[in-house]
Amino acid sequence: MKQCKNVSPARRPISNSRHPAIASINRLLESREEREQAGLFYTEGWRFVFRALENRFTHVESLVVTPETPNYALWQRLLHLAREQEIPIVSVTPTVFQYLSRAEEPQGIGVVVRQPWERLHRIRPDTGLCWLALDTIRSPGNLGTMLRTLEAVGGAGVIVIGDAIDPFIPEVFRATMGALFDLRFVRATWGEFQRWRERHSVSLIGTSPHATTDYADFAYPDSLVLWMGSERKGLSDKQQGECDEVVRIPMVGASDSLNVAIASGVLLYEIFNQRRLKTTASKK
Amino acid sequence: MKQCKNVSPARRPISNSRHPAIASINRLLESREEREQAGLFYTEGWRFVFRALENRFTHVESLVVTPETPNYALWQRLLHLAREQEIPIVSVTPTVFQYLSRAEEPQGIGVVVRQPWERLHRIRPDTGLCWLALDTIRSPGNLGTMLRTLEAVGGAGVIVIGDAIDPFIPEVFRATMGALFDLRFVRATWGEFQRWRERHSVSLIGTSPHATTDYADFAYPDSLVLWMGSERKGLSDKQQGECDEVVRIPMVGASDSLNVAIASGVLLYEIFNQRRLKTTASKK
Repeated sequence: MKQCKNVSPARRPISNSRHPAIASINRLLESREEREQAGLFYTEGWRFVFRALENRFTHVESLVVTPETPNYALWQRLLHLAREQEIPIVSVTPTVFQYLSRAEEPQGIGVVVRQPWERLHRIRPDTGLCWLALDTIRSPGNLGTMLRTLEAVGGAGVIVIGDAIDPFIPEVFRATMGALFDLRFVRATWGEFQRWRERHSVSLIGTSPHATTDYADFAYPDSLVLWMGSERKGLSDKQQGECDEVVRIPMVGASDSLNVAIASGVLLYEIFNQRRLKTTASKK
Repeated sequence: MKQCKNVSPARRPISNSRHPAIASINRLLESREEREQAGLFYTEGWRFVFRALENRFTHVESLVVTPETPNYALWQRLLHLAREQEIPIVSVTPTVFQYLSRAEEPQGIGVVVRQPWERLHRIRPDTGLCWLALDTIRSPGNLGTMLRTLEAVGGAGVIVIGDAIDPFIPEVFRATMGALFDLRFVRATWGEFQRWRERHSVSLIGTSPHATTDYADFAYPDSLVLWMGSERKGLSDKQQGECDEVVRIPMVGASDSLNVAIASGVLLYEIFNQRRLKTTASKK
């Protein structure tokens, strides 16, 4: 078996948080510019590390481990996957791990992963349940929750329009619960997105509390991009004008809007349920 | 017109954040014990203050204002409502307001409100769309979002089982976007809740990824309590055993669970849609 690069039981764990390898990971956590220049992000926890290692589309750059990692079986499985994929392992002291950690209960295992950006012109719209288009979501928790739901219903991925959103912020990742590894990511300008829509005859579906079409009465087409607006303002009138259809999620209380992640969840499950019924019907 | 208590344009605003009135509001923000002993909570922002003042079920204890409050029309409307309800007004300097504020952009207007707890034995289960039962929700953002959605679909309120949840934390309130004022709140022990269920023949509906009944195939009864488990573990096997029905929200991705607020949203909208259809059908 090939020896794993950069790791040997004899090598001492890094004990200085100013070590260049640690400083560069810390910059990935703290700076979007740094993340984008390197094209990487960092996350932690056994569950997510395995999800990264076992996903064939995820390119793992390196692993960060502490020597006191407790479970032997987990550790063996980890080393096996790391060897197989020739992934460098950076061994650090618990103090250094803690320095990098954003977790309530750090598990002593982290991973540096390549940001999986793809080019829009290579994307086929009829993959998965649908695509989600986003341009301004302020809360990382909302964004992460939206991605988590999108993955759960078999959504293909996210088309990020413009530069406002960075999906690789640690807080976003945490809210996705790892679902981010199973989604595809595209960034495009509005012009690029428009040209792609026209070429592929994709339906762009928006939402607004003032739309006339009830979301539950609309027959969602197979090739579909769902566009969710910002938390505070939703989709502007101009943005709604760009949509092929704008649907309304009805409300009966005194409130005039839903949380954007809830609205996405309700819409995605409606699309998912319609598709499930269609699939069942076509099998009969 | 009666003169508003405690307010006179001549009175100087409180400029010391150690002033007893300010210290006691600050304790409402910081300590659950303090909130519960006083039976009060504090929130801020024009929108929420008006929602509190205009809701006939909300008992406002006092208003906190800064002299530089800008909009004359808003201010007149506020004074009118405060006079009508004989609500004391505490005038503070912008610095003191800032000291109390948890907002990104403080608006110089806050409100102390009585916690609207009711006794379970006075609750009729067939009010509103349904009731929501909760025992352990860790994230204030999740809890607040759940309450916001519950109110949007016309849910009656929340039955908090046990002592783990305090719905009057500032972070919960913020995530409700004020919907909290339009919901009813009951706290009960498990035993009290069981007796109430039996007396009223209420259906308790739980959710689990391992249940056999698809949430979209189940006919939700009119008198219904939806029980959502904790973020990490959902409902335990024992808890599921207590339910009249446990439904599954299907998922097709690699993830094994949804965010609890999303799961609530998907279920609440399914119940809401079924009830809408039933109402439309019965009108025909």
